[in-house]
Amino acid sequence: MNFCSDNAVGAADEILAAIAAANDGAVMPYGNDDLTRRAEAAIAEAFECEADVFLLASGTAANALCLSVMAPPFRAVCCHAQSHIQSDECGAPEFYTGGAKLAPLEGDHGKIRSPDLQGLLEDANPDVHHVRPAAVSITQSTEAGTVYAIDEIAEIADLAHGHGLKVHMDGARFANAVASLGCSPADVTWRAGVDALSFGATKNGALAAEAAVLFDRGLAPTFAFRRMRGGHLLSKSRFLAAQFDAYLSDGRWLRFAAHANTMAARLAAGIEGIAGARILHPVQANEIFVSLPEAVLSGLDGDGFHFYRWEGEASTTVRLVCAFNTSAGEVDAFAAAARRHAGG
Amino acid sequence: MNFCSDNAVGAADEILAAIAAANDGAVMPYGNDDLTRRAEAAIAEAFECEADVFLLASGTAANALCLSVMAPPFRAVCCHAQSHIQSDECGAPEFYTGGAKLAPLEGDHGKIRSPDLQGLLEDANPDVHHVRPAAVSITQSTEAGTVYAIDEIAEIADLAHGHGLKVHMDGARFANAVASLGCSPADVTWRAGVDALSFGATKNGALAAEAAVLFDRGLAPTFAFRRMRGGHLLSKSRFLAAQFDAYLSDGRWLRFAAHANTMAARLAAGIEGIAGARILHPVQANEIFVSLPEAVLSGLDGDGFHFYRWEGEASTTVRLVCAFNTSAGEVDAFAAAARRHAGG
Amino acid sequence: MNFCSDNAVGAADEILAAIAAANDGAVMPYGNDDLTRRAEAAIAEAFECEADVFLLASGTAANALCLSVMAPPFRAVCCHAQSHIQSDECGAPEFYTGGAKLAPLEGDHGKIRSPDLQGLLEDANPDVHHVRPAAVSITQSTEAGTVYAIDEIAEIADLAHGHGLKVHMDGARFANAVASLGCSPADVTWRAGVDALSFGATKNGALAAEAAVLFDRGLAPTFAFRRMRGGHLLSKSRFLAAQFDAYLSDGRWLRFAAHANTMAARLAAGIEGIAGARILHPVQANEIFVSLPEAVLSGLDGDGFHFYRWEGEASTTVRLVCAFNTSAGEVDAFAAAARRHAGG
Amino acid sequence: MNFCSDNAVGAADEILAAIAAANDGAVMPYGNDDLTRRAEAAIAEAFECEADVFLLASGTAANALCLSVMAPPFRAVCCHAQSHIQSDECGAPEFYTGGAKLAPLEGDHGKIRSPDLQGLLEDANPDVHHVRPAAVSITQSTEAGTVYAIDEIAEIADLAHGHGLKVHMDGARFANAVASLGCSPADVTWRAGVDALSFGATKNGALAAEAAVLFDRGLAPTFAFRRMRGGHLLSKSRFLAAQFDAYLSDGRWLRFAAHANTMAARLAAGIEGIAGARILHPVQANEIFVSLPEAVLSGLDGDGFHFYRWEGEASTTVRLVCAFNTSAGEVDAFAAAARRHAGG
Repeated sequence: MNFCSDNAVGAADEILAAIAAANDGAVMPYGNDDLTRRAEAAIAEAFECEADVFLLASGTAANALCLSVMAPPFRAVCCHAQSHIQSDECGAPEFYTGGAKLAPLEGDHGKIRSPDLQGLLEDANPDVHHVRPAAVSITQSTEAGTVYAIDEIAEIADLAHGHGLKVHMDGARFANAVASLGCSPADVTWRAGVDALSFGATKNGALAAEAAVLFDRGLAPTFAFRRMRGGHLLSKSRFLAAQFDAYLSDGRWLRFAAHANTMAARLAAGIEGIAGARILHPVQANEIFVSLPEAVLSGLDGDGFHFYRWEGEASTTVRLVCAFNTSAGEVDAFAAAARRHAGG
Repeated sequence: MNFCSDNAVGAADEILAAIAAANDGAVMPYGNDDLTRRAEAAIAEAFECEADVFLLASGTAANALCLSVMAPPFRAVCCHAQSHIQSDECGAPEFYTGGAKLAPLEGDHGKIRSPDLQGLLEDANPDVHHVRPAAVSITQSTEAGTVYAIDEIAEIADLAHGHGLKVHMDGARFANAVASLGCSPADVTWRAGVDALSFGATKNGALAAEAAVLFDRGLAPTFAFRRMRGGHLLSKSRFLAAQFDAYLSDGRWLRFAAHANTMAARLAAGIEGIAGARILHPVQANEIFVSLPEAVLSGLDGDGFHFYRWEGEASTTVRLVCAFNTSAGEVDAFAAAARRHAGG
Repeated sequence: MNFCSDNAVGAADEILAAIAAANDGAVMPYGNDDLTRRAEAAIAEAFECEADVFLLASGTAANALCLSVMAPPFRAVCCHAQSHIQSDECGAPEFYTGGAKLAPLEGDHGKIRSPDLQGLLEDANPDVHHVRPAAVSITQSTEAGTVYAIDEIAEIADLAHGHGLKVHMDGARFANAVASLGCSPADVTWRAGVDALSFGATKNGALAAEAAVLFDRGLAPTFAFRRMRGGHLLSKSRFLAAQFDAYLSDGRWLRFAAHANTMAARLAAGIEGIAGARILHPVQANEIFVSLPEAVLSGLDGDGFHFYRWEGEASTTVRLVCAFNTSAGEVDAFAAAARRHAGG
Repeated sequence: MNFCSDNAVGAADEILAAIAAANDGAVMPYGNDDLTRRAEAAIAEAFECEADVFLLASGTAANALCLSVMAPPFRAVCCHAQSHIQSDECGAPEFYTGGAKLAPLEGDHGKIRSPDLQGLLEDANPDVHHVRPAAVSITQSTEAGTVYAIDEIAEIADLAHGHGLKVHMDGARFANAVASLGCSPADVTWRAGVDALSFGATKNGALAAEAAVLFDRGLAPTFAFRRMRGGHLLSKSRFLAAQFDAYLSDGRWLRFAAHANTMAARLAAGIEGIAGARILHPVQANEIFVSLPEAVLSGLDGDGFHFYRWEGEASTTVRLVCAFNTSAGEVDAFAAAARRHAGG
């Protein structure tokens, strides 16, 4: 049983079925087909607005392309020090922006704190010697498995806009955040001041489907060229569109995410009482970061449970991720095994 | 009926079935799964060598990434003036190389002529003021629907290597070339001097599957980082791998390509006798470039046949592309309609 | 005696004296000094307008930085095939633009012909696959030693503006062109539609002094950051300013250029009658391109005259450049020697 | 009197005289002249080795070009958080490397501490998701006016080399460090493990003269192309060479630096006893960082003393820099005025 990541699991049957259903006949390539247009419209509709939408196969591409229309090469993007764009994308933002800097901010539980951002922005020196921020990127849900409250986002966005910055949201696990908050997708994005969202589906049941959603339509004019130039305009675009079509239909995306969140909560509940267990961040979405005794971890390893040791191979902090298709049985088996190895 | 492009059609059922079959269970993401390793090995095996193989979802990415490990920012890539990298990728090679120049060469029927290449290489000035070639890229089959003979490739590659250049092959329609030549994939690539191949499957029945095949393994060490940085390492890599697995099994890829080539030959035969028809390039793969009277084209348009006017909307030169699933009936219907509109 | 280039000679005494005079005392660095502000204003005044002016030490930097504010990475710059930006700057425009393409146009005597530009612009495809022109760059005086008439510039600029392009002028030898035309610097730049000029002084008597003159002030906001980021903001800016101060004073720059032009005309007159001599381009500024018998060239070599063989070491086409300090005696000595070696 | 920076003062008379002396006659441009070759050789000789030397007009260019041959776009450069490359060059290193990251390390008194570097290197993850360090850059003398001991450099360099990194030294104020240490230039560079040095002269009496000194000659082959492409190969190279020629002659460079250091020590001695004065870093070269009561600073402002408030306009921490030509009288006047304003 695999708790390594929500991208270790496959795709949902409904997504696969939608791909198969989209296969009939010939259509114009490169997004000039009805299904792509329909999926783009469905995404905008899910956000109750007129956003410009661009389909992609990769979340790193979504992030880097969004940032490329927000930050010129001589400016910076503020982000959390543990954000994916700073730590896990091999410099994709730097590549797509033409060399912009990332300005990392520390902050508990994966969140940027607005006073820290405020300090950074107020200290920013407009002289030509310095790389000034042009955008802020926040991750929702965060890399720590937590979720920004709407107010927290609005506070960051207000601050950013007040200093002329654009606001990006890395939403690789956006569905988990929305399911957690129980709000409208619009409330936690453009209504709170987000200018562009990397809207992920891959980690929540798609094969490979992400969308850049540009609420600030002034960011859109060059996006299509940058997507093509990055090699991210897929010729058979219908297959990306089909995934989103199925993903957004019948509330499927939020149902999947809610399930993953529920499983994570259940797993947290199952292990938090274990001797030596320490849950490091509030479990608000589908990820748990927990410190466990090495004996427990070794035992779980031996049982065939898979998970990442989070700070290197010798680390006893692990990340446990639940997916759209994680079962209660798997979760309970993990918790039971952990308790057993803890001698509980 | 759609003759616009081989990416206007969907994917082969066998490819879709392979994707569905790969969906079970959890596996490590980012290519660290058995199916990806098996597909990489299968590709190398198809080329009878120890190549380094990198799976991708986009042909533009394959081309640009291959060139990025061949040409530093201050050097050039020689290519045909009508090549995809020069004319149709929105500057992706320039982006991925960090600003290398493309040095375009004219040549009949989509082929670089080796004397032209030789002239360019001999004139190349090693002084720091000048951007010198570092690589040559050829397209097989070409953008004109023709196929380089093995000897032609070897001549270009020898010339290139003699001047210290690497040799790239854009093989978006590589299967059609191999099927046309009836040779081993190895004969027309590394045995003829090709250092890296963009090995396309998308245009020949896959959903979205391309591979960079590095025969010169000295090119490989930085490729994986550049792929990640470009946002082209898909997390659920198994779905790319499954496509290649099915594509290469049972000689499927060459059977598909041979069929498309046969349909193109049949279509060419069907229209070449039409009054005013002029076929512009030898039909050696799955594409036909033909000049037809406007009345014929308008008539075909009216009948619901789709094709690209090749040099702008008013052009009477059209491209007709046959795919792995183009039927003899479609081809014959097109030819019959064309004859009818020609008053034949 | 050296006819290789106008940068083979040293600097004018008046320029050196101005540098020495600027040396006294401490002033704020990085251009925040009175002398820099005065030189910037003097340049704008010479052009009778409110241009934004940026001082630089390198003409390649001036060109590349100007183009970097005109063309985004996914667009192109139209230029003459023999232009310095295309052929002699090791890809600096590609570097500074982040990978824009140069779109070279042939044309007699170093000049872009407007019908060719018109054809290129009308064929430009707005689809995302293609790199569309964003700017046109012309060289004045040209790399062939000719000078665009004001009408020719206006025609190119009108065409460019009509298609949404910006117009750049590489004026490494701008003074020679103005001296040749006998017009106002404004007439041949912004009044004719030029948006930005690389205004060179180095080749006309300065040590190392160039200015980017942005007539279209909308291009200016990011220029200062790009200059700093390129490493081209000199700390002791006063020494660049001092050069321009002296250069523009007392009509010195045009007097220097007129002298160089006169010497070139005298040299052309002195050699045009020689048996086998063929002057390849109209001599309108300070450069002569001439084909001479090998015996004559070898003889001149032997006499210690220096010049570039223009198309490789074995070429019998040579370039002869006169500078601000070339003497009539040197010119006459060259012509006499050439005649002697021709057996005249 | 100006204590803002050592680039607020002009150039030494001997440097200006050398420029004037180099002005006679025509020589080949772009560094193909005897004086340039002599200056390059003189620099290598000053370092008692066979280094490759490249002359430049800008220290930012020297730093960025050195780093561009050390770090590929997908790797990082470790540096001090207050280093010039991180904080004051508008992203030039990112530009020239094609988007490499800077990995800043805190450390007292402007110095990287080797245990911090060791931690960073040991934590570096070789997986493709992460940007791994490729180089470390240290500043000598530092941005805090301190000087690395030879042993400190060797420890950092050993660590770096042990992890496959190259070692860069930003030597904008290298002369001040060597004068402070009283060692051979070789001892504090290549003998201690430095692979490339940005060897500055501008801040120590030159007009605009810097050199990239590549002790690791394996870094050299592409440097000349990158310099040209960056617009940093000056045509009249002789004038850069003349500055270095004079700079290195007769021990002038170390004499200038020793004088500046002496003045800084004298100034520090003059103000350290003032009530409320706190000198923040050991004064080991030519810079003093001192916290002074606002009344003192305002008083000094009013007297016409110029200096930078170091952390914004309201800061009471100031930087005082002494230059090659700062006089004892100026220093004593400053100290006396400060004491007077302190009511001492």
